[in-house]
Amino acid sequence: MSEELRINGRRLWNSIMEMAEIGATANGGSHRLTLSDEDRAGRDLFASWCAEAGLSLTIDEMGDMFARRAGRDKDNAPVGMGSHLDTQPYGGRFDGVFGVLAGLEVIRTLNDHDITTSLPLAVVNWTNEEGARFAPAMLASGVYGGVFELDWAQSRAAVDTGATVLDELKRIGYHGDRSIGEQEFTTFFECHIEQGPILDSEGIAVGVVNAAQGFRWYDITLEGFPSHTGSTPMVGRRNALLGMAKVVQAVDDIVHEHAPLARGTVGGQVEVAPSSRNVIPGTVNFTVDMRHPSAETLAALDASLRAVCEEVAEEIGLDLSLEQISYTEPVAFDEGCVAALKRACEGLGLSHTTITSGAGHDACYIANRCPTAMLFAPCKDGISHHESESAEPEDLEAVCNVLLHAALDVAGVAN
Amino acid sequence: MSEELRINGRRLWNSIMEMAEIGATANGGSHRLTLSDEDRAGRDLFASWCAEAGLSLTIDEMGDMFARRAGRDKDNAPVGMGSHLDTQPYGGRFDGVFGVLAGLEVIRTLNDHDITTSLPLAVVNWTNEEGARFAPAMLASGVYGGVFELDWAQSRAAVDTGATVLDELKRIGYHGDRSIGEQEFTTFFECHIEQGPILDSEGIAVGVVNAAQGFRWYDITLEGFPSHTGSTPMVGRRNALLGMAKVVQAVDDIVHEHAPLARGTVGGQVEVAPSSRNVIPGTVNFTVDMRHPSAETLAALDASLRAVCEEVAEEIGLDLSLEQISYTEPVAFDEGCVAALKRACEGLGLSHTTITSGAGHDACYIANRCPTAMLFAPCKDGISHHESESAEPEDLEAVCNVLLHAALDVAGVAN
Repeated sequence: MSEELRINGRRLWNSIMEMAEIGATANGGSHRLTLSDEDRAGRDLFASWCAEAGLSLTIDEMGDMFARRAGRDKDNAPVGMGSHLDTQPYGGRFDGVFGVLAGLEVIRTLNDHDITTSLPLAVVNWTNEEGARFAPAMLASGVYGGVFELDWAQSRAAVDTGATVLDELKRIGYHGDRSIGEQEFTTFFECHIEQGPILDSEGIAVGVVNAAQGFRWYDITLEGFPSHTGSTPMVGRRNALLGMAKVVQAVDDIVHEHAPLARGTVGGQVEVAPSSRNVIPGTVNFTVDMRHPSAETLAALDASLRAVCEEVAEEIGLDLSLEQISYTEPVAFDEGCVAALKRACEGLGLSHTTITSGAGHDACYIANRCPTAMLFAPCKDGISHHESESAEPEDLEAVCNVLLHAALDVAGVAN
Repeated sequence: MSEELRINGRRLWNSIMEMAEIGATANGGSHRLTLSDEDRAGRDLFASWCAEAGLSLTIDEMGDMFARRAGRDKDNAPVGMGSHLDTQPYGGRFDGVFGVLAGLEVIRTLNDHDITTSLPLAVVNWTNEEGARFAPAMLASGVYGGVFELDWAQSRAAVDTGATVLDELKRIGYHGDRSIGEQEFTTFFECHIEQGPILDSEGIAVGVVNAAQGFRWYDITLEGFPSHTGSTPMVGRRNALLGMAKVVQAVDDIVHEHAPLARGTVGGQVEVAPSSRNVIPGTVNFTVDMRHPSAETLAALDASLRAVCEEVAEEIGLDLSLEQISYTEPVAFDEGCVAALKRACEGLGLSHTTITSGAGHDACYIANRCPTAMLFAPCKDGISHHESESAEPEDLEAVCNVLLHAALDVAGVAN
């Protein structure tokens, strides 16, 4: 029977649209910042849906919400499905939300058909994936994955009010009693919109995400000498902006040497001083973001960046400060999970491609704890973190069907 | 007798240092913004010195101060000498001040020696050369030279209080009754620190300025598409900052093709958006400053800049907006005046070089009305518009002696 089983695409879409109404923006997006009143309302709505679906809800001390559907094997850890309900400021309707509500739709579908799985299932809403109101991103899943300390995470301050995560969890009534490491999963699947253009531009239905890029972030300062644009000869100028221009060009060249997987971007945090049109730029501060799914290649990109910056500084007579401010290791998702996702795609006759996630996701940290993989759905022009973020109902439905069949594959059907 | 005549270098220096006390800054500079209380105090001090020197002071409707020493030929227009007493915010002690007080020192020297000139002499303080508190720069000399309308100039608003030039002239008691075009000059000489490194680095005593660069200022916007640095493949990116980097490099290449006189600088007014380190820069606004003493070459630089920007925009898929926001024509100073200055250098045995001014000066606009030329004195490392602006007493003395002898050359000695 399960071969023909399909989720209810209209119900999934309607739930996403109903959630989007909470913090809806004038231009069709959602503004539901972590632990704000809107986040509370979104959580409450999700909790009501979980109750309607007969799920038992528990909350941990980081506010993560676990909605459990019992399986035949009551003592086993569930197969987890989920993502996050918080959004970027004036963000989109799908980023995160799709992953949580796809998990819920899988369970609703099983309820519709009175299917009992061998392993329990759980739908999860992870707290503060976006990192917009409280830095850093993927905060709760990071604690769960052992990357951040609980005390540190709970003490992060909101950029708007200065209130801590713990203050705000208590204020909105989502400071739970479960310890954050307590909930275990047999397997975890996260569905998400791609937030990149590949599936949309190539017309592929499903991205099976087998890895996530590692990335290195840098703060760089080039310091030269500010002098008059008219009276200073070209020879002997120490123009910091010319130095940055050479680095921008070099970063582009370096990553093209490691095509197609390498990514490298200078900016958008760029400060040029003095800010005067008739003074040669004396100081430029800028950021660099380098990414690759292989730690070795990422180290090679790092070495090339450092060498180029030193050459440029030497050539123009600039003082160089280069600081790597963060390093996130590449993630290889679980081969068994990836295989289950591919099998489901094939069983459903859906076009699919293996894809590396360019962005960070909760699943990247959860992978530290259990076998994990992700599914990507196409989104229009790859646009995300913007009110104009858009996805088609049938594309989300297709990916949710893959989740359904992969979850059943792992959890097993008991009846 | 006049062959051996020399100014009093110590008196010149002491006057400059006394003026620098008005609006003195903690780091050895001066902060005497146009038509501020400090500017009034500077003007009052200058006026008191003019009275002590027996000069008759008149003020025009833009606050320009004309201190006249009678000559034998009472009906003739005077030989003018001067510059400006206003400073940049936290600016230097010499920019402008040297030119005004050098003129005063010439007159004090003639008084010391009871020398009467055939033509009258006048020392001038032009209002708002700097353009820092009221844009644009060289405001009053621009009205004098027919470049700006009087009403428009008087209605310019202060960036700090919003008060107009006319309001502030009245407030500080320097709204004079002379019409601005009324005062004529037989010849005008302006002494100034170089504000560039040539004289200082080459150990040359005097710069005889025979021309001023023309310049073209541009506001450029490149607009691409902001997308995620991780999930957006390198191919197909529309990175506005990469476009700017190519323009920065191209501007440097273009001006080197017209070495050594061409100057070209991108920035320092640069804005990159979105200002997020994990978003590809979607929009970059920046400024370009191109300079050359020949209008023809400046037109060629303009054509090259436009071509390069179009190529870059085409290559990366960016929308280009390029606006020339101002054009200042090159100035050729009067050959007779330049010759008089060179003769004076030679008579004094001072090393000198012909130099093109890279910066704008009051003399550039006064040259529209009468034969005009300038003298440059070395300043340390070419630094100006900064509290650390520095010049040596003996260097200023030497240039002031050149002014003395050139003024006598033009005005003639009557006794």
